[in-house]
Amino acid sequence: MNTPTPQARSSVLVGFDADDTLWKSEDYYRAAEKTFQSIVGEYIDMTNPQTAGHLLAVERRNLGIYGYGAKGMTLSMLEAAIEMTAGRISTADISRILQLGHDTLRHPVDLLDGVREAVAAIATEHPVVLITKGDLFHQESKIKRAGLQDILPRIEIVSEKDPATYARVLAEFAVPMERFVMIGNSLRSDAEPVLALGGWAVHMPYAMTWAHEQEHGVDADHPRLRHVSCAAQWPQTVASISALIEEGAHA
Amino acid sequence: MNTPTPQARSSVLVGFDADDTLWKSEDYYRAAEKTFQSIVGEYIDMTNPQTAGHLLAVERRNLGIYGYGAKGMTLSMLEAAIEMTAGRISTADISRILQLGHDTLRHPVDLLDGVREAVAAIATEHPVVLITKGDLFHQESKIKRAGLQDILPRIEIVSEKDPATYARVLAEFAVPMERFVMIGNSLRSDAEPVLALGGWAVHMPYAMTWAHEQEHGVDADHPRLRHVSCAAQWPQTVASISALIEEGAHA
Repeated sequence: MNTPTPQARSSVLVGFDADDTLWKSEDYYRAAEKTFQSIVGEYIDMTNPQTAGHLLAVERRNLGIYGYGAKGMTLSMLEAAIEMTAGRISTADISRILQLGHDTLRHPVDLLDGVREAVAAIATEHPVVLITKGDLFHQESKIKRAGLQDILPRIEIVSEKDPATYARVLAEFAVPMERFVMIGNSLRSDAEPVLALGGWAVHMPYAMTWAHEQEHGVDADHPRLRHVSCAAQWPQTVASISALIEEGAHA
Repeated sequence: MNTPTPQARSSVLVGFDADDTLWKSEDYYRAAEKTFQSIVGEYIDMTNPQTAGHLLAVERRNLGIYGYGAKGMTLSMLEAAIEMTAGRISTADISRILQLGHDTLRHPVDLLDGVREAVAAIATEHPVVLITKGDLFHQESKIKRAGLQDILPRIEIVSEKDPATYARVLAEFAVPMERFVMIGNSLRSDAEPVLALGGWAVHMPYAMTWAHEQEHGVDADHPRLRHVSCAAQWPQTVASISALIEEGAHA
């Protein structure tokens, strides 16, 4: 029989981040932010960096109430626009900001180069799971539109990617952290908590990173961290990590 | 040994809805809606039922983009307010509506009478799971504040309570639908899809129901539907359903 033994098939669990790892996302948020800045720029001078940074400040103070996602971003944009213009913004421009929210929630889901092939190759060797944070409704909609359910049927949508969340997800899979590899574009969300718990991380930087995600304490030379530049490198990287895990387990 | 056999302990899975089943929720949404109507009422005549119903119309047309929850409600309120006042609403009043969103997201989580005792009693006899729809971040925040994690550790936050969603959750528990009892206040979300799949439902009406949830096709005399008026009746109701399931299984 060619059926792999349970050990061979299920030894190492591979997690995938979604936004800016499987498909483009930050581009759409950045485009919305640029439009926001130009709308507010019709009222006030936006060359002052503190003024330009006010949206991020509002988003951060609201994170504990709104969580992540395009709906919270839109609400924070409205709040920031009223504050920045001292209430002078017109309702027509408020409507334009509401429309930015709609547009961001319905942005196209374009898989990054080589993603489908890389995920499919890894899924034939390992159990796989998509672990993404953000808005449940929007993430489910994107996953459907990406058409990856056939190769990535297990999905965990979480409100924060911290060590407690990864520990809970791994417990549900009954997999120890040292047999878990997380692939993602964010050192803060995809690598740092996983490495802290004893797991492995594959970092593929995206062309742009949200300022909030740029704060992390990951050593680029961490022994359980790998760096890749495209999805085509994922299968080989996972295979080499998997070999190291098996060596360690049998040492 | 007093450890129950797997059959005895895990024979019937009991699901609990959250909002307006475990704790008050709709009251806060209704209060927000009332404040919304009074804000818009400063600009236009709200005695016309079509005018008063415009918010629900906007919420419904946005359900496919925003999903359920207080953030989507707030965005729909802003959209509706601008439409209803033909753009005359002031930014001060836009800010009041944004504040309504904040207040709704941070409303107190008050358990309904007898809920803790009823859930605890059922959890000693059956595996239990909380199944709630809406905003992931807000629901997680309420579950934490309710302090029910000790007796209800398994939580499924879903974007829609339709047959496909219940089927997926039950598959994760490896429980057949005919051994599942769902307790909730909504015939549309908690009873109809579960009954359609062959499961059991316990309906406890809440004092108020969102108009959207009032549309359902459930026969009040359905043989697998029970009606209760308070949480204290849950354990006995589940026990009698459980006995019927076991009888059926051994018939």
